[in-house]
Amino acid sequence: MIMTVAGHADFEERIRNSFARQGAMETLGAELTRISQGVVEIELPFDLKLTQQHGILHAGVISAALDSACSYAAYTQIEPEVSLLTIEFKVNLMSPGRGERFLFRGEVTKPGSNIIVADGRGYALSDGPAKLIASMTSTLMVVRGREGISE
Amino acid sequence: MIMTVAGHADFEERIRNSFARQGAMETLGAELTRISQGVVEIELPFDLKLTQQHGILHAGVISAALDSACSYAAYTQIEPEVSLLTIEFKVNLMSPGRGERFLFRGEVTKPGSNIIVADGRGYALSDGPAKLIASMTSTLMVVRGREGISE
Amino acid sequence: MIMTVAGHADFEERIRNSFARQGAMETLGAELTRISQGVVEIELPFDLKLTQQHGILHAGVISAALDSACSYAAYTQIEPEVSLLTIEFKVNLMSPGRGERFLFRGEVTKPGSNIIVADGRGYALSDGPAKLIASMTSTLMVVRGREGISE
Amino acid sequence: MIMTVAGHADFEERIRNSFARQGAMETLGAELTRISQGVVEIELPFDLKLTQQHGILHAGVISAALDSACSYAAYTQIEPEVSLLTIEFKVNLMSPGRGERFLFRGEVTKPGSNIIVADGRGYALSDGPAKLIASMTSTLMVVRGREGISE
Repeated sequence: MIMTVAGHADFEERIRNSFARQGAMETLGAELTRISQGVVEIELPFDLKLTQQHGILHAGVISAALDSACSYAAYTQIEPEVSLLTIEFKVNLMSPGRGERFLFRGEVTKPGSNIIVADGRGYALSDGPAKLIASMTSTLMVVRGREGISE
Repeated sequence: MIMTVAGHADFEERIRNSFARQGAMETLGAELTRISQGVVEIELPFDLKLTQQHGILHAGVISAALDSACSYAAYTQIEPEVSLLTIEFKVNLMSPGRGERFLFRGEVTKPGSNIIVADGRGYALSDGPAKLIASMTSTLMVVRGREGISE
Repeated sequence: MIMTVAGHADFEERIRNSFARQGAMETLGAELTRISQGVVEIELPFDLKLTQQHGILHAGVISAALDSACSYAAYTQIEPEVSLLTIEFKVNLMSPGRGERFLFRGEVTKPGSNIIVADGRGYALSDGPAKLIASMTSTLMVVRGREGISE
Repeated sequence: MIMTVAGHADFEERIRNSFARQGAMETLGAELTRISQGVVEIELPFDLKLTQQHGILHAGVISAALDSACSYAAYTQIEPEVSLLTIEFKVNLMSPGRGERFLFRGEVTKPGSNIIVADGRGYALSDGPAKLIASMTSTLMVVRGREGISE
């Protein structure tokens, strides 16, 4: 069983603090734009420093943002004193990462006391409708009392 | 059937040029350290700007380096005039990305004229023996004559 | 671009014919219970011949049913004269496959003229509410004019 | 840390007993052909009852055999009193499953006290050299003291 956290303000603050400690998110220019029960969104603007050789968003950047979105979505559903580790994920790249801005949403598919499964979707945002560029399925392990992995 | 490329010097130069155009690889501080038939290695030093909240390498950084290594490994086995797109990959994170330096090796498992499958492994390098931190299986599509995705 | 098929009856018949030729689906006792644009469902009753050592549904059986559901979902969105090949899939096993009956739904997430991505979910059905037991993300390739793979 | 099992005979017998309880393996006509430290092989003959609509081995059958091979490979590296659950796997289908007989090898890539990662390969065997038809990466969880999942 998953103990529900005390309230929204609580996990929101913990997630914001954790996110702020992610050097990689700062490097990507990413920001947290939504934190709610089981759902977290991260956005980042297009930047040439994030591209692969075709001038589109590198798959690793997409993975980084989706992994963080999925992990923090799971984070809304664990007790404050435990940690999460991403064990593995799969990413499908569906359309080239072209756009002015990108949105990455992570959502918990299956909560659990040991293993949590989350799914994520990435979208390119420009003038028109949002375009689905990628999906992720991520498996996370709940870690209790292991030193050095405190959130 | 896969047409073999003219020679080592040929794909090596094309891969080096392509890699140099990857803004993301520069952002990661990554460099190409081995290019051979079906195998490519990329290395990068630890940097706080590449970390997640526990101070270890972000899974997205690991994915970026493994994706590039796998893609360029596949790139050694295609004709010069075609391109490759990563369709999807799966990453397993086996040990925390702690170390002074990291090595990512991509290797072609199954060549093909339409679909290429490559496997990658990531290692943390410190004083002791290299430590396996992650693996990737990547599926790539060979793209012919599509504009705007030229290598 | 994907040419839409002439109508529901058309792909429904082709899918039923194709399904009937799947020896594996007969071996599993599976039946097609829903065929609609982009969504296909397959059901099968629990049977001891489909179990692993704990007496629950074998992950391979779950994979078989989800793969067929995802593939036929994609099949509703291709031209009649082309074929589909599953290139790869990922399965997450979320709860033990216990139940009287199981439902597997495949749904197209990203249509395409070369690559189609579908997602599937498997549920255990008993007296209570349906229980999510597994998910799949599947990547399919549209195959044109290759002999011996006719549907 | 993983406690090593008492000896070869020990895990071999436990694996054979467990395999014999897998209804699905009997349904597939599969047999255990190799059990060694960290490596297990399963073979099965071609049979029309295992096919998809093109008359080749169904991807679900390939998944079932690879999952069992990977799981039992992991099983050689756990203590006798614990169990294993497959959390997830990814399968790449590289060549059509045509042949007289098929060999599936599972191998532990990363042992662990909580999570074990195994990789598998499937081969079609006919007159010529073995042909690689599929690969799997599988993530398994070590389960202690949970009722109803005893091996």
